[in-house]
Amino acid sequence: MRAIVYKKPNRVAVETVPDPELELPTDAIVRITSAGICGSDLHMYEGRTPDSDGMRFGHENMGVVESIGTAVLNIKVGDRVVMPFNVACGSCFNCARGYTNACLVVNPDGVSGGYGYSGMGPYAGGQAERLRVPFADFNCLKLPGQPGDDFEDDFLLLSDVFPTGYHAAVLAGVEPGDSVAVFGAGPVGLLAAYSSLLRGAAEVYVVDGIRERLARAQEIGAIPIDYNRGEPCKQIQKMRSENHFIQGAQRPGENKMSGVMCGIDAVGYQARSFDDPKQENPIQVIEELVHVVNPTGRIGIVGVYFAEDPGGADKSAKHGQFRLPLGDIFEKGLTIGTGQTPVKKYNAYLRDLIIAGRAKPSFIVSHRLTLEEAPAAYEKFDQRSDGYTKVILKPEVSSIS
Amino acid sequence: MRAIVYKKPNRVAVETVPDPELELPTDAIVRITSAGICGSDLHMYEGRTPDSDGMRFGHENMGVVESIGTAVLNIKVGDRVVMPFNVACGSCFNCARGYTNACLVVNPDGVSGGYGYSGMGPYAGGQAERLRVPFADFNCLKLPGQPGDDFEDDFLLLSDVFPTGYHAAVLAGVEPGDSVAVFGAGPVGLLAAYSSLLRGAAEVYVVDGIRERLARAQEIGAIPIDYNRGEPCKQIQKMRSENHFIQGAQRPGENKMSGVMCGIDAVGYQARSFDDPKQENPIQVIEELVHVVNPTGRIGIVGVYFAEDPGGADKSAKHGQFRLPLGDIFEKGLTIGTGQTPVKKYNAYLRDLIIAGRAKPSFIVSHRLTLEEAPAAYEKFDQRSDGYTKVILKPEVSSIS
Amino acid sequence: MRAIVYKKPNRVAVETVPDPELELPTDAIVRITSAGICGSDLHMYEGRTPDSDGMRFGHENMGVVESIGTAVLNIKVGDRVVMPFNVACGSCFNCARGYTNACLVVNPDGVSGGYGYSGMGPYAGGQAERLRVPFADFNCLKLPGQPGDDFEDDFLLLSDVFPTGYHAAVLAGVEPGDSVAVFGAGPVGLLAAYSSLLRGAAEVYVVDGIRERLARAQEIGAIPIDYNRGEPCKQIQKMRSENHFIQGAQRPGENKMSGVMCGIDAVGYQARSFDDPKQENPIQVIEELVHVVNPTGRIGIVGVYFAEDPGGADKSAKHGQFRLPLGDIFEKGLTIGTGQTPVKKYNAYLRDLIIAGRAKPSFIVSHRLTLEEAPAAYEKFDQRSDGYTKVILKPEVSSIS
Amino acid sequence: MRAIVYKKPNRVAVETVPDPELELPTDAIVRITSAGICGSDLHMYEGRTPDSDGMRFGHENMGVVESIGTAVLNIKVGDRVVMPFNVACGSCFNCARGYTNACLVVNPDGVSGGYGYSGMGPYAGGQAERLRVPFADFNCLKLPGQPGDDFEDDFLLLSDVFPTGYHAAVLAGVEPGDSVAVFGAGPVGLLAAYSSLLRGAAEVYVVDGIRERLARAQEIGAIPIDYNRGEPCKQIQKMRSENHFIQGAQRPGENKMSGVMCGIDAVGYQARSFDDPKQENPIQVIEELVHVVNPTGRIGIVGVYFAEDPGGADKSAKHGQFRLPLGDIFEKGLTIGTGQTPVKKYNAYLRDLIIAGRAKPSFIVSHRLTLEEAPAAYEKFDQRSDGYTKVILKPEVSSIS
Repeated sequence: MRAIVYKKPNRVAVETVPDPELELPTDAIVRITSAGICGSDLHMYEGRTPDSDGMRFGHENMGVVESIGTAVLNIKVGDRVVMPFNVACGSCFNCARGYTNACLVVNPDGVSGGYGYSGMGPYAGGQAERLRVPFADFNCLKLPGQPGDDFEDDFLLLSDVFPTGYHAAVLAGVEPGDSVAVFGAGPVGLLAAYSSLLRGAAEVYVVDGIRERLARAQEIGAIPIDYNRGEPCKQIQKMRSENHFIQGAQRPGENKMSGVMCGIDAVGYQARSFDDPKQENPIQVIEELVHVVNPTGRIGIVGVYFAEDPGGADKSAKHGQFRLPLGDIFEKGLTIGTGQTPVKKYNAYLRDLIIAGRAKPSFIVSHRLTLEEAPAAYEKFDQRSDGYTKVILKPEVSSIS
Repeated sequence: MRAIVYKKPNRVAVETVPDPELELPTDAIVRITSAGICGSDLHMYEGRTPDSDGMRFGHENMGVVESIGTAVLNIKVGDRVVMPFNVACGSCFNCARGYTNACLVVNPDGVSGGYGYSGMGPYAGGQAERLRVPFADFNCLKLPGQPGDDFEDDFLLLSDVFPTGYHAAVLAGVEPGDSVAVFGAGPVGLLAAYSSLLRGAAEVYVVDGIRERLARAQEIGAIPIDYNRGEPCKQIQKMRSENHFIQGAQRPGENKMSGVMCGIDAVGYQARSFDDPKQENPIQVIEELVHVVNPTGRIGIVGVYFAEDPGGADKSAKHGQFRLPLGDIFEKGLTIGTGQTPVKKYNAYLRDLIIAGRAKPSFIVSHRLTLEEAPAAYEKFDQRSDGYTKVILKPEVSSIS
Repeated sequence: MRAIVYKKPNRVAVETVPDPELELPTDAIVRITSAGICGSDLHMYEGRTPDSDGMRFGHENMGVVESIGTAVLNIKVGDRVVMPFNVACGSCFNCARGYTNACLVVNPDGVSGGYGYSGMGPYAGGQAERLRVPFADFNCLKLPGQPGDDFEDDFLLLSDVFPTGYHAAVLAGVEPGDSVAVFGAGPVGLLAAYSSLLRGAAEVYVVDGIRERLARAQEIGAIPIDYNRGEPCKQIQKMRSENHFIQGAQRPGENKMSGVMCGIDAVGYQARSFDDPKQENPIQVIEELVHVVNPTGRIGIVGVYFAEDPGGADKSAKHGQFRLPLGDIFEKGLTIGTGQTPVKKYNAYLRDLIIAGRAKPSFIVSHRLTLEEAPAAYEKFDQRSDGYTKVILKPEVSSIS
Repeated sequence: MRAIVYKKPNRVAVETVPDPELELPTDAIVRITSAGICGSDLHMYEGRTPDSDGMRFGHENMGVVESIGTAVLNIKVGDRVVMPFNVACGSCFNCARGYTNACLVVNPDGVSGGYGYSGMGPYAGGQAERLRVPFADFNCLKLPGQPGDDFEDDFLLLSDVFPTGYHAAVLAGVEPGDSVAVFGAGPVGLLAAYSSLLRGAAEVYVVDGIRERLARAQEIGAIPIDYNRGEPCKQIQKMRSENHFIQGAQRPGENKMSGVMCGIDAVGYQARSFDDPKQENPIQVIEELVHVVNPTGRIGIVGVYFAEDPGGADKSAKHGQFRLPLGDIFEKGLTIGTGQTPVKKYNAYLRDLIIAGRAKPSFIVSHRLTLEEAPAAYEKFDQRSDGYTKVILKPEVSSIS
């Protein structure tokens, strides 16, 4: 079959590789109809992770069940399914509590498994014609309809970015009537804002420096904040203070609460400086969040931070250590949630919102391409050129008009 | 001042009564700009509650602060405010935990205080020109804007029915992606459906027998179920089964889950029989809920049941006892939440949703009338004639075109 | 192998039956070292359930893994394990949310699977020398130590009654500092009281009519209430009122809260009347609970109620319908949780409490017997004679001194 | 009356000051029977906070109501009461949600009020004969019994350190069966460990370097870890691994979970280096916590960190900024809770545990002294000499044998 294979830094190729096979009776083989390219694939693409040579990329996978092992009971051949990016056993202490992002069984080297990802176990990725899915009963989410229907791209996003945006809102404790500030308007940031609104937030501010992204935020009902126009925290507080409705609603002391109750970091360790976008400044987003979130508030961090980052700016950064405003955090009594998304905790609910027509996350998709177009797409996506923000590959298609 | 006064069964009058006065340093006097007539006022109107003679009705109250006691710090004269129907001290064991529906201090005869309501303490109602508000710092919610602006009616509904509809969704555990069945499409039922959608429900079914109410349910995005067309539980299960999307999404055994996860009783003890609407059948709604709610599901009961109901059909009903399907409840492992709404738990969040333009509960209002029109309105509302479903009185207005 | 087999009402026998075999690659065979006889086994023993002919009883099972299927990864031959009474797939919508008591896959006839139990699927029981365990990775809890060590009986109770007592406390919302009333001092009631104390309850009252049981309650730190001495609800309220410490702590209105915050029904549908223990009175316990639980309180029901009970006293009871005080429930704003226990949600935590020496649930065990002694034990247990309250069978032992 | 007054760095005096008076109708005056000296008083004592000249210290206060304002309803003259260290209005947005640690009304300069504390509003402290208590209905917790009875010291600790230890366990998410590591065995650390056990923890490790403190930890059922014997994290992981019970219970991958699920920082910004106790090392405790807490675990920080600390070791520390292992935190998916304790959320429950004999927090008290002995006690406590760990002043007593 054809698959995307990592060759060397800044180079992937489409190659013919052996078809995946059922290795355990709990496995299934899925014929891929859609596979996303994720921002986190670029870490590997740029050669900043070890042991990627010859790796098949792709952790956002969806398709049709082609064969199943003898112990697979819940799904059958022909089922349309989407898989969480996490590979999880379903039985260990962490999986049984819903923490499929920390499965103790599937990854000999750590507490988290994934398809086609460095350090996340021996699982080939799905930017290919077929994918082996371990523990298929547990890891396949059944879908209605037919491949290529109106929901194809929405459903594909159930594999990672929609649940990850939603997880950000959960970590930040977004409840109906809350106010939210999301830093970063890439796919995850936009879907964090979108999910915050789904969860009933009253006001959602989205901070970014790129006009197109901010326009997208506004289209979904969020309030765009351009960091090129001044410190985001101050812009948000000013808007909330000037808003005659909010202001009029204040009791004494509510000027002490002129920020928001919930903050989301959808940027992570490669954040650009607000002042000089050519510089990385991995601290600034969290500093701003701590300023803009009100006392008793909550912060959710889904932008990635690594414990080891050879490309870090200094010795501390190389070990994932950053200077954080702990004094402010403590005085405000903030709660901070972090980490990878346990996709299975959310994907059935988000699927049902898509089916019912109440969620349409595919607004973030910028490109739909064939497998053969993937190498060029990686290059452009890595440079964020030509509007490449979210690419979905269609392995069954030989040309897309 | 002028006020609505209960005279005898099926008769209220507008009378001149003494102005309320500050009795404690924590009191405020509020000039009423809007006061709702609630379905529960009709229990008293019909003479089915004791000790109502001469009572001033009205527990849905909103207006402008006219004077405050010396210990009032958080609000000031001129503030626009809306009051929860619960009168609550804010300090007792229950209030401090958020259960303002069970204040231990304000009602010498029970665990719940309210304005103008039989058995809920010595507090005059607000269907009048002025209202005394005890523990004003705790019981007044500040509002932006000016009396009579576009939000006037939305804000008024923060006193009772909007939070009560919302409380129903909370008791039923409605979370994003959930499916919900609401029985009853009166103001509370419609706002329970509306609140379920605000909380992110994927599908909300609303059961009623009156065409106009069902149409209203459909307008807000719910799915109307007319009980005249067959057993509601079966209609809902059929719709969910026939829906090719949901069905296609099923794993094995999900036909065991063809109902909904959340059920809401917004009808209460005076429920009409589905089969013969001239008969009361206080059991049927709960029976249907137990059928339609899936195993592990949750039921919220905000429709009122009284421990003593002299008008009950038999001896059991007179003491608030009903034959319930406990065997089915247990086998399904259902959770049931009940009771009056602790309005203050929700009203600031719902206010912020209104201000932000994300909630507009006033779609349920049918009539806006002067105080002088109230006696006639009570009569029509009691008969549910001329479309009287939700009446808001405007005490400051002498005629409304 | 030897196994307990149901022959006819009030008669089980020890018979030689075929050894269980691995049927699916996810199965394991466990050699049983301990198997409990549960009060719910008596429903079948008495012939009050259908389709039990030839059934092998036993849903409280523990032992050593003897063989595993090719897809079993988490446990290995020789592991000491205890199994939840629920058979669960681990992958379906309900299992993945932790509701293993409502697995959609394992039972073709319902939403709950179990070993050796009528209506809970085709799984032989473990009162035998060996047991087939489906989905072994998910359903086996690993244990330290060796068969027969000091923890043997404590660990066996992790299969059902300890988690069930604990679940009762969870359903009743028992939190540190709470007050609790448990009705029923059988194994589940005692372990519900014990679990309430483990969860930090300040005061736990246990209501029963049998002196030995009440003495046991007192030994574990609970306060015994003998229903032969007067209405339990009034006894409890009087004790709390007379207790000078509690009384002294009262704020105004706390006499309205002279009951307890949490109530537990550990009796179920076969409850005896307090007044005349020869009569069944399935309503009385819940009535008492509703009286004794304070406004805003919570009730957990783990005593079993069946939707169909051919032995019910009247037509309603035969269909699991009972006259309940819904008016009082609503006015108090109570929350009620019900149903079978999802054992896997709790068993690892309870195991760790046993290992750490902080829990010792085996105080409830009355008899340890060989398989051959089981038929006689069933008879005595059914008659509650000779102190038979909790029997554990030791299939590997031919005689117990 | 006599009161402790701050004179200059390292000097307090007992002086005669004017009696406090009722200033608002919601005030009460309380005659103090016990007043604690808190470790946080030493920050002010050492002169490291601004604007303390002439301040009366004391935020741990208990006594008998001597007079009440005209709007006080819930307490009466003669009531025995203890007050949370937080002064809170009870009505604002934060108080109404239970966040009395962030009251918007009582402190013109911030979001938190307290007695006798720099930056927490204009409220005199209670290390004196009398204390003015604002919002007395809200801020007084009624107590049973008589001043000086067996519970006197236990009840006094309800003002701060017992709830603060308990809050640490809540922030760390300690649930029954959990494993916990507490850093710091001062009064708060010991009560955090004690509270973790009250909440049902299976194993609680307490890390400190002082033998007496570790002995105390062991007495209450915790496992002492002396950091002088090696890195605490490694000691704990080794003990858990070597413990044959825990080890035997492991499923595959549980060596990835050889730490604990919950971590507590009860030390704060003035932490001593494990390696060289003469050096401050404010980062080390959090680094160790991040190492020892398992993936998906939770950390509670109640040790104080200030946003501005003029005595900080470097420029970052002076502004409360510290280099934290964000990469590790993210990869483990940890949740971190921080901040001051909302005492009123817990104090009634903890009081009831004391009354029921299930909690006896006074084991931490080292000295009971008269007011006149306070200046000398401050000096010794500040030097941690003569075993001064927790001092309670008895203003009504002229000499204590």
